[in-house]
Amino acid sequence: MKRVLSRGLFIGRFQPFHLGHKASIDFALSQVESLVIVIGSSQKSFEARNPFTSGERILMIKESLNADVDLDQKRLFIIPIPDINIHSLWTAQISNSVPKFESVFTNDEFTNMLFKEKGVKVIVPPLHRRHELSGTAIRNRIVNDLEWLNLVSPQTAVVIDDIAGVQRIKKLSLLDPHFNG
Amino acid sequence: MKRVLSRGLFIGRFQPFHLGHKASIDFALSQVESLVIVIGSSQKSFEARNPFTSGERILMIKESLNADVDLDQKRLFIIPIPDINIHSLWTAQISNSVPKFESVFTNDEFTNMLFKEKGVKVIVPPLHRRHELSGTAIRNRIVNDLEWLNLVSPQTAVVIDDIAGVQRIKKLSLLDPHFNG
Amino acid sequence: MKRVLSRGLFIGRFQPFHLGHKASIDFALSQVESLVIVIGSSQKSFEARNPFTSGERILMIKESLNADVDLDQKRLFIIPIPDINIHSLWTAQISNSVPKFESVFTNDEFTNMLFKEKGVKVIVPPLHRRHELSGTAIRNRIVNDLEWLNLVSPQTAVVIDDIAGVQRIKKLSLLDPHFNG
Amino acid sequence: MKRVLSRGLFIGRFQPFHLGHKASIDFALSQVESLVIVIGSSQKSFEARNPFTSGERILMIKESLNADVDLDQKRLFIIPIPDINIHSLWTAQISNSVPKFESVFTNDEFTNMLFKEKGVKVIVPPLHRRHELSGTAIRNRIVNDLEWLNLVSPQTAVVIDDIAGVQRIKKLSLLDPHFNG
Amino acid sequence: MKRVLSRGLFIGRFQPFHLGHKASIDFALSQVESLVIVIGSSQKSFEARNPFTSGERILMIKESLNADVDLDQKRLFIIPIPDINIHSLWTAQISNSVPKFESVFTNDEFTNMLFKEKGVKVIVPPLHRRHELSGTAIRNRIVNDLEWLNLVSPQTAVVIDDIAGVQRIKKLSLLDPHFNG
Amino acid sequence: MKRVLSRGLFIGRFQPFHLGHKASIDFALSQVESLVIVIGSSQKSFEARNPFTSGERILMIKESLNADVDLDQKRLFIIPIPDINIHSLWTAQISNSVPKFESVFTNDEFTNMLFKEKGVKVIVPPLHRRHELSGTAIRNRIVNDLEWLNLVSPQTAVVIDDIAGVQRIKKLSLLDPHFNG
Repeated sequence: MKRVLSRGLFIGRFQPFHLGHKASIDFALSQVESLVIVIGSSQKSFEARNPFTSGERILMIKESLNADVDLDQKRLFIIPIPDINIHSLWTAQISNSVPKFESVFTNDEFTNMLFKEKGVKVIVPPLHRRHELSGTAIRNRIVNDLEWLNLVSPQTAVVIDDIAGVQRIKKLSLLDPHFNG
Repeated sequence: MKRVLSRGLFIGRFQPFHLGHKASIDFALSQVESLVIVIGSSQKSFEARNPFTSGERILMIKESLNADVDLDQKRLFIIPIPDINIHSLWTAQISNSVPKFESVFTNDEFTNMLFKEKGVKVIVPPLHRRHELSGTAIRNRIVNDLEWLNLVSPQTAVVIDDIAGVQRIKKLSLLDPHFNG
Repeated sequence: MKRVLSRGLFIGRFQPFHLGHKASIDFALSQVESLVIVIGSSQKSFEARNPFTSGERILMIKESLNADVDLDQKRLFIIPIPDINIHSLWTAQISNSVPKFESVFTNDEFTNMLFKEKGVKVIVPPLHRRHELSGTAIRNRIVNDLEWLNLVSPQTAVVIDDIAGVQRIKKLSLLDPHFNG
Repeated sequence: MKRVLSRGLFIGRFQPFHLGHKASIDFALSQVESLVIVIGSSQKSFEARNPFTSGERILMIKESLNADVDLDQKRLFIIPIPDINIHSLWTAQISNSVPKFESVFTNDEFTNMLFKEKGVKVIVPPLHRRHELSGTAIRNRIVNDLEWLNLVSPQTAVVIDDIAGVQRIKKLSLLDPHFNG
Repeated sequence: MKRVLSRGLFIGRFQPFHLGHKASIDFALSQVESLVIVIGSSQKSFEARNPFTSGERILMIKESLNADVDLDQKRLFIIPIPDINIHSLWTAQISNSVPKFESVFTNDEFTNMLFKEKGVKVIVPPLHRRHELSGTAIRNRIVNDLEWLNLVSPQTAVVIDDIAGVQRIKKLSLLDPHFNG
Repeated sequence: MKRVLSRGLFIGRFQPFHLGHKASIDFALSQVESLVIVIGSSQKSFEARNPFTSGERILMIKESLNADVDLDQKRLFIIPIPDINIHSLWTAQISNSVPKFESVFTNDEFTNMLFKEKGVKVIVPPLHRRHELSGTAIRNRIVNDLEWLNLVSPQTAVVIDDIAGVQRIKKLSLLDPHFNG
């Protein structure tokens, strides 16, 4: 297949990085020469919806992609970007934080909306097993002691184990959402 | 009626600017020589409750008031003010951002409370058709395809049309309130 | 009892300062030579869950502890610390804002979790009458005109009276949680 | 002369508003249908280079322009914009804070550079008496008790007088530039 | 001497706390019933002009004042306040961070100016040996290996020794003022 | 040579990325298994000392390292980190933004000082041609039309050319350092 685009963006929060993300990255890499993986809300961690730090999420992604022998690391950028909390500036913040790109790959409706508003081409990667392969679903399975290791890469599982991530997610799920209550 | 006050403040979010706002401004202008229209939460946009940018809201207000031949533009200031997120400093932030004023016109209970706490005179403009003429009600009508054009000025309607605002409000209403989910 | 630790931290929001806080401070002072009382979320006020400013909370604590003739003021620090909103940096912010300490006293699960994650010793003071002696319970009693003066020190009661705090809490409880609605 | 542009931006700090600014605004209004006057660094005040608050500067501009009987107030917006302190986002912040525009009028080299980088048309208004008609020059004359009233509008002079602005500028000029030394 | 004021503020940066500060505090305590010692620029540290953290400065002050047997600790508050970087809001930030006060004691011209602008009574404590007893002078003496221990309390000297503060000040004095050059 | 450390950090601003940086990275990679290249002050750009955006600097580094056939991309992380402007929190911010590390490689005295203060092992890579191979020297050569292409990788040169970086550096060098003057 002929690649028509030179550089794309794939945006997610990766809480945690899972097989759905891996499939989307593979899809995007079939369309573009190089791909920037943007770790959104990078400043968030230790919240029920955002348990992992930016450093932990970078490690999950990097180790998982390192294990794919077919993937040329030279084509990949992994860039954490903190929220700017001014929605109308968010696309500008991303554009200034990464090398120039021509298209955005995302399954997030809001990201889709904001980039389209600025005239950027948005591509929605096909989703497989979307109800299982979502961060929310995986965190819920962890909280409820259901099987989840089959939904993430072995490398992600190792990172989560190293930081006692299962315990962390369970504790955060019990906390009052209002910090410091 | 004799005007006893030299300058007043009218504070709102104007999401969007509607005929209730226009009536309150007319009321305030009957009481004061000059009026500062403060666009609160100016940094917010692309949220279900705050769909419009500061620039878009300024345009709605300015074009609507320009169309009123009885209104002397020299008496009006339109000033956007971002949230400071420290409630106890909010009145100080406003005072430093606008020309000196003697009174505040507002229908918002919280604004009322904070200014009274600082000893500022607060006047509550009479509300007509308060259940229809509110930003929340108008956004809900737009989402549900109910008639709403009769609740705003023709100029506001043009601004909303120019930016595909109806579509924007509908999309935002469907999104998970947690950005980047 | 032999004191084995030189300095401890007691962290709370003190909305308002109540007898449960006083008991925890007494407990902590039985364990350490000097104690830093950290007023968390110091930037918050005029919210239903955080009605009092940092200055008001400092006054409640200081006046209440001044009244305890058995307590040596030289052993006490009272330090307000604003939220940093990046959870993974919160313990670092506290450590840089207070004199060196060896242990943390807290009944808050989240504070407990974050300090343990950094390897800091956390001690949970015994709670007496925990359902009554909580900020949330006391604010609810105030809203509902139930007896609450027996749950705080006379000095806290005076501070609340001086600032018309009962009225403030009642008003805040009625407001739309979304500021500037 | 035929106006080819629908809306322009004129950006300055207006410390204080002077006759050079007025001439540039007149020039810009000869080129565009409506003009947005952007008050940059709006958050700054009580500094040697930025003595006046946003509210004071808005008042200088508004009162000065109100006095021009040939000028139609309906064509004018006056919008304060705080610095974002991330240079690469500054043009995006402006674009989101004002109604859509096609061109920028500025004598500031840096503003010129940033907008050109984004592909926006920049027009440099002709400068008359540029060594006299600059904020820096006027503040210096005030500090040194030289004639300056002929360099500003009578309305600006009244605002400065009302707030004891001459004294303020003199005091600020004597202070160590490092606040809280 | 009759005390006419109930509560005063003494504002400094305390880089480091020295005998001049102690004399000013003694003077202020002769005028007011209770005194709030405000540690300004509390967020700054590891800069040539601001070498010490907030926690270190609090400890210097507290330990020094604890050693004064004539001083009743119940009359004293020690409150760190970070810069807000919006000069026109600085007095409001202080007012919301401390218990109510009637007067401000300060030798800083800028602090003096800002509070007077808001109508607050400002008292300038008499300065003894002002050329020696200033933070700048003491830091310079430390850098140049001149005698300085006679200019601070023994308690301040101990805190500085515990953190290897002499070394820190010397290193910072050699660094390019532009961080991360 | 036996590698004793598992992961190291190399911190710079990379304005621009030059052959000195490349040599330091090669040195660090001889000591550790994997290396995190931290792009400091990532939020800065369009300043005389910080002309390039984070996205531009990432591209310079990535393309330059991609061209080194002996370098295994799997061992490398490239992570931009914005300044936190609270020096005492800077090391904590870095630690939370990157995967766990055991050592820091840096030629910057201040970075060295802050990490040592926290007990982190700091290694100073040997510097070759230190007067030529510095960002400041290279920017100065560009401003003065002296030879500089031999001091950077061909890939850095291409990035600078693509964005008209020579022109940008020259323009920024002429500007008043005070933005918006």
